[in-house]
Amino acid sequence: MTVKIPESILVCHEADKAKEFVGRIWGKKATFVCTIGNTETGKIPGISAAGAVPEITDFTPAADVELLYYGKCKCFDGVPVTPTGIPTPGIITMSAIKLANMPIFSANGGVNVRPTAPYFELDGKAGKDIRTGKAVENPRKVYETAVIAGESLAAVSEVLVVGESIAGGTTTALGVLTALGYDARGKVSSSMADNPHSLKDEVVRIGIKNSGLTLEQMRQDPMLAIAAVGDPMMPAAAGLVVGAARHIPVIMAGGTQMAAVLALVKGMEPGVLPNLAIGTTKWIVKDGTSNICDLVSQIGKVPVLAANLDFGPSKHPGLSIYETGIVKEGVGAGGASIAAITSSKGKIDCKALLQTIEQNYEMLMKKQ
Amino acid sequence: MTVKIPESILVCHEADKAKEFVGRIWGKKATFVCTIGNTETGKIPGISAAGAVPEITDFTPAADVELLYYGKCKCFDGVPVTPTGIPTPGIITMSAIKLANMPIFSANGGVNVRPTAPYFELDGKAGKDIRTGKAVENPRKVYETAVIAGESLAAVSEVLVVGESIAGGTTTALGVLTALGYDARGKVSSSMADNPHSLKDEVVRIGIKNSGLTLEQMRQDPMLAIAAVGDPMMPAAAGLVVGAARHIPVIMAGGTQMAAVLALVKGMEPGVLPNLAIGTTKWIVKDGTSNICDLVSQIGKVPVLAANLDFGPSKHPGLSIYETGIVKEGVGAGGASIAAITSSKGKIDCKALLQTIEQNYEMLMKKQ
Repeated sequence: MTVKIPESILVCHEADKAKEFVGRIWGKKATFVCTIGNTETGKIPGISAAGAVPEITDFTPAADVELLYYGKCKCFDGVPVTPTGIPTPGIITMSAIKLANMPIFSANGGVNVRPTAPYFELDGKAGKDIRTGKAVENPRKVYETAVIAGESLAAVSEVLVVGESIAGGTTTALGVLTALGYDARGKVSSSMADNPHSLKDEVVRIGIKNSGLTLEQMRQDPMLAIAAVGDPMMPAAAGLVVGAARHIPVIMAGGTQMAAVLALVKGMEPGVLPNLAIGTTKWIVKDGTSNICDLVSQIGKVPVLAANLDFGPSKHPGLSIYETGIVKEGVGAGGASIAAITSSKGKIDCKALLQTIEQNYEMLMKKQ
Repeated sequence: MTVKIPESILVCHEADKAKEFVGRIWGKKATFVCTIGNTETGKIPGISAAGAVPEITDFTPAADVELLYYGKCKCFDGVPVTPTGIPTPGIITMSAIKLANMPIFSANGGVNVRPTAPYFELDGKAGKDIRTGKAVENPRKVYETAVIAGESLAAVSEVLVVGESIAGGTTTALGVLTALGYDARGKVSSSMADNPHSLKDEVVRIGIKNSGLTLEQMRQDPMLAIAAVGDPMMPAAAGLVVGAARHIPVIMAGGTQMAAVLALVKGMEPGVLPNLAIGTTKWIVKDGTSNICDLVSQIGKVPVLAANLDFGPSKHPGLSIYETGIVKEGVGAGGASIAAITSSKGKIDCKALLQTIEQNYEMLMKKQ
């Protein structure tokens, strides 16, 4: 089917493939699955402005999952905020999911704090600081189990949207992309105003050195790259993507972290690439301090779609600040928005999304 | 829609409702979910002939789930056998699922041994000996999370089949039915040749006494009944049934254990009863040492359907022995068979099922 891609979706890479992909998922019901993990990497001072209490980042993925399921958090009061104090982009995801009546699942790659909600247990552990060079225990087992879960979800879905929530994930993304031989320096995004590229580079350099592995070894076996300098979200997300994309189209919902997952997917099972698109936000593709399209173009001919959300007109500073680029993506916000648009054949657009996001924002802020 | 119920399905209770239920699910795709748990109750000598190593029963649910996902077990070699040495009825379930191409999920109510496969984690713990009167920790949390998982599965399914695997489950079924005020003495089934009713009665009597609760308290709050004399499969199964049956028809796949789950469901959310049927096997409904129809009739107007499997013609003693009634049900074998029949509009019948079961049996026995 050929469709005109609506204005609410920007195409940023592989325009022809993007059109074909959107045509294939147009009007098809999407299922959302949120992969979660924790990594000590996010607690390195300066990597992610985690505030006075870095341990709070352990709660963020659980709280995000609870927000999607219940419209509120259970593991703490209020909603998760980004390191810079902006409400989680999970509010966008939750709004898109509600509006499109999307079924929700979640998958635990390895966390310190578990959500009070059902999730696929993949028997992974929370990740260590990647400077150790031994960041993730047994990612292969998590990956293989996630592949099976992806196949189960594909058996009950027309389209799968795979999102993520993990603090510190852009540094581990840089780690894995570098380990797999891609030129990712200065190209991964950040949740902070100033993207601390040189610190991230240094952390990754130390991690790869301490892993005792060569880039060639890691390129040959992408699970070694995760084990050395990745995070526990990665084998979960990569496995779900591979298992599902064997059968149905999959939107990899995220920014440069999903570029890293895409690199892993390509390394494990390149045959599924034609069933994939990256789905992210305008704020990611327009970010001057990172370059998702360059990253994806190094990996494969996979379209990059972006939800053309505009929070400029919002009366809430916590939302309009998104236009400054300080928060760009997370919890699959962009991909979930795109799936809401495509599954509704464009009846849901970015304006309708903003309206629902504002309502949910008001409701959640009142609760605090 | 009115359909003639095929000969492959026996109707054993509430014939009119059974016909209406089968009409509603005819041609509809079914999703299978296996709930698992462990209870120390299964290790009481004489309750369940667990053989020389009662701890092996800890592995059975995990092995059953692996059998469904992979067609073989991962946590040990070969296939699980019943206490009397007969291959698990999970072979029936696996065959029905394969034949009807049914999506598979599993949910962990509380086990000592986890499957190497994806499962919904509900954060429950393995159950204690019910003679303690404190058999299950915090069943309410498991139940509530399972309700959410049931809603998610309903959002992606037309019909849900909820099965179970837990050793010792008929004694805990007697416990919960008794605690909820039903007359269940001499009516729950057994995996042994001689159903040890008087021992089960005694175990339940001690458990209820040690719980310090009155029947009235437990009737008022069914979660107290599970906490006192139930098992961890129960809140998982009851929650999945309630969450799904709010939206779609649900086959409760099991024998007298599912009667106990039905009693819990009725106690928690009686409004879902019109969306339920018990789906079991001929060997359960014809069992002279138990009485599922009497149990269900005490609970509510819920149809009891039975897969009319006949293993008499099988050339394998491990299968033909089912006709002696020594193994009757388990891993949702009956309900999965019924769903295979209804989803295929009767194209799959009990003869086709036996053929596939024999093939899988041969394949699995060769591996041992």
